[in-house]
Amino acid sequence: MKKEIINLIEQRKYAEIKNQLIEMNVVDVAQLIEELDKQNMLIVFRLLPKDFSAEVFSYVSTDLQRDIVESMSDAEIKSILDQMFLDDTVDFLEEMPSNVVKKVLKNANESTRKLINQFLNYPEDSAGSIMTIEFVDLKKEMTAEQAIRHIKETGVDKETIDTCYVIDKERRLEGAVFIRKLILSKDSIIVKDIMDTNIIYVSTNDDREKAASLFKKYDLLSMPVVDNEDRLVGIVTVDDIIDVISQENTEDLQKMAAMVPTGEEYLKTSTLTLAKHRIPWLLILMISASLTGGIIRKFDNVLQSTVLLASFIPMLMDTGGNSGTQSSTLVIRGMALGEIGLKDVFKVLWKEFRVSCIAGLVLSSLSFLRIYFLEKVDLLIALTVCTTLFFVVIIAKLLGGLLPIVAKTFKADPAIMASPLITTIVDTAALLIYFAMATWLLNI
Amino acid sequence: MKKEIINLIEQRKYAEIKNQLIEMNVVDVAQLIEELDKQNMLIVFRLLPKDFSAEVFSYVSTDLQRDIVESMSDAEIKSILDQMFLDDTVDFLEEMPSNVVKKVLKNANESTRKLINQFLNYPEDSAGSIMTIEFVDLKKEMTAEQAIRHIKETGVDKETIDTCYVIDKERRLEGAVFIRKLILSKDSIIVKDIMDTNIIYVSTNDDREKAASLFKKYDLLSMPVVDNEDRLVGIVTVDDIIDVISQENTEDLQKMAAMVPTGEEYLKTSTLTLAKHRIPWLLILMISASLTGGIIRKFDNVLQSTVLLASFIPMLMDTGGNSGTQSSTLVIRGMALGEIGLKDVFKVLWKEFRVSCIAGLVLSSLSFLRIYFLEKVDLLIALTVCTTLFFVVIIAKLLGGLLPIVAKTFKADPAIMASPLITTIVDTAALLIYFAMATWLLNI
Repeated sequence: MKKEIINLIEQRKYAEIKNQLIEMNVVDVAQLIEELDKQNMLIVFRLLPKDFSAEVFSYVSTDLQRDIVESMSDAEIKSILDQMFLDDTVDFLEEMPSNVVKKVLKNANESTRKLINQFLNYPEDSAGSIMTIEFVDLKKEMTAEQAIRHIKETGVDKETIDTCYVIDKERRLEGAVFIRKLILSKDSIIVKDIMDTNIIYVSTNDDREKAASLFKKYDLLSMPVVDNEDRLVGIVTVDDIIDVISQENTEDLQKMAAMVPTGEEYLKTSTLTLAKHRIPWLLILMISASLTGGIIRKFDNVLQSTVLLASFIPMLMDTGGNSGTQSSTLVIRGMALGEIGLKDVFKVLWKEFRVSCIAGLVLSSLSFLRIYFLEKVDLLIALTVCTTLFFVVIIAKLLGGLLPIVAKTFKADPAIMASPLITTIVDTAALLIYFAMATWLLNI
Repeated sequence: MKKEIINLIEQRKYAEIKNQLIEMNVVDVAQLIEELDKQNMLIVFRLLPKDFSAEVFSYVSTDLQRDIVESMSDAEIKSILDQMFLDDTVDFLEEMPSNVVKKVLKNANESTRKLINQFLNYPEDSAGSIMTIEFVDLKKEMTAEQAIRHIKETGVDKETIDTCYVIDKERRLEGAVFIRKLILSKDSIIVKDIMDTNIIYVSTNDDREKAASLFKKYDLLSMPVVDNEDRLVGIVTVDDIIDVISQENTEDLQKMAAMVPTGEEYLKTSTLTLAKHRIPWLLILMISASLTGGIIRKFDNVLQSTVLLASFIPMLMDTGGNSGTQSSTLVIRGMALGEIGLKDVFKVLWKEFRVSCIAGLVLSSLSFLRIYFLEKVDLLIALTVCTTLFFVVIIAKLLGGLLPIVAKTFKADPAIMASPLITTIVDTAALLIYFAMATWLLNI
């Protein structure tokens, strides 16, 4: 496909290129343009019809958007702005350097400029920042026929007329009606009689995660957004919510792997930024892991007398860390999905206790068989190792279940309580138990 | 709310309960019923109008669905089956014990029974298993007016008429048209002229993850599903896709935390099942972690001569593990989102190499300052520890970047390559470097 287009460009068969591209999906056209070199990309982009190119524009990468805008005339920018949805315009401006933002704002008409500035002011993670203002509003006194006529007159090319919103004179939200319900109703029926008054909505300053969880809970396709005075100012659509869910999952994963979260794509993030996001937590965890060194040094008489004991430390610490991570991951995820709440703390602990007894028993018995019979290690040392293992698994799983809930109680993010922090705590506990057992069983 | 309903039940004010509930969202009614005891729950459920109760039914928990069906008469089951969407019926049957399944199938009419059996046969993770058959099909020769009339006649209460699909005589998919486009068009326009022929679709046996990533890429609200002969058999809607995305994320997290993945909710999973999902990986990792014990025993002369060296082993191993997990998490997530492909392996390695040099340098310099100046450890030992740390960070990050891509090359799941497996490999490498450095620098 890419080669074909380059050939056509070289032969200057521009009409043919245009005809081929407008038959394609805008997302695929965006991807194709992305692969061309800068000059050919601009040629192809200019060939596209205005409304089509505006859609393609909102799907190409930030770098390409900048290149395109920088090479455009003021008239071209104006025409693209007219065709783009306001939320896409704002998304794109948020990533642009200030000279590009200025160039674009200069070419927007005054009302659009005002709206853009208002949108740029919403907090980054708020519902306001992901809403769009292109929606259809109805009055409750309209008949179904009038409503459909109103939609025909005002709704041309709005992506989001599947649900229409009913507002009063002060633009306060009164109800919602699916367009399919309007169509399936008799012409004479009044909107008021078929509208749903039980509306799920968010406020502009609500967290976008709140919007996402409402979408999930109520299986919504769009949701109205109101301002402080309950006036309808925009709607959030499900395609943006899918992006939010995906981003939040990425951030949770990053936190659980001990990184400062970033929304940027890996390959597009600079080495220095990556390093900056990783080093702080590595440092914190390195210093806390050094605590374990202190414990070992304190008990060096034990190790001195039986160096063999040192060789089981890594296995004990790793198994403890893995056991704790399993539990914390399930609890953190359960809390993120709203399946586990603060009130469930004792249920979680009781479950983890029972699971850890089973897991601890299986792991330590098998370890004993291996260490005592296969590796022919001294009975007392084998017992020291396996008893420690049993208790370490229990402590690790209890901590893994408890810490995320404790974090939530103190309004901290449960995700940062995951593997690394738990590993460090469990390591310390494991060593203390190990040396205590050794001192006692081996009489050192 | 719950108390209010219980009061009303005691006063036998059933009409009032019904009036209150039908004003509420079905999801909230389902949640409310969930909180009542079994007897009251059944009373309330029976009060609801048929279509409303069918919707509520598809939102309550599996346990409750079983209780309801078991207490229902055949006539009641018939009426609920008539009102439920087929995909919800199938979802619910998949979780039921066989006596309930039989009771339900007995009351389904023959065509529904056939369809249910066909759906139950689709592989669990396939697009077929999440599709619904309630959609509107059009012919391309229809005018917009005829199409809308056809929708009015056949589409009553179909949740999914926002996109209509155009099929030929053999039911092969020819195009798609948004209902809003039909409404916004002139009555006389032919469907063929406004339909989109560039349709994104999946086949019944395709993985549901494939469907999910197409929804994300193309911002879809619904997607047609075809059989082996390209005939349209159903559609997948975005609300089910949101559930798929959420479940896949949960499974990835579980795999990354070394568990056999399960779709079940934590609090509803039995202790034994939880243990069964966790023990296999804990065992594998415990055995592989024991390798490190072998290495330590092999070098016990080094430890014997300088027991102090043992005290740095946990810090070295933890930091290596954390460094590797950071890299692997980013790469696994990048691959899941389609941002990183197999061809990017050298880009990833080069990036990880540079990041790890920076991180390694920062961590080992700060460690040196702490160990040599603060803890006043012997210079050569401090040097041994810090040089090892530097190399461990580099190896860990290179492995963290490489292993998920290698897994993908061999069609294995990148998520299982995450923290625990990498930790084990990095631990071994860390010890080998450490003892090599010690032998060389300390002349043991």
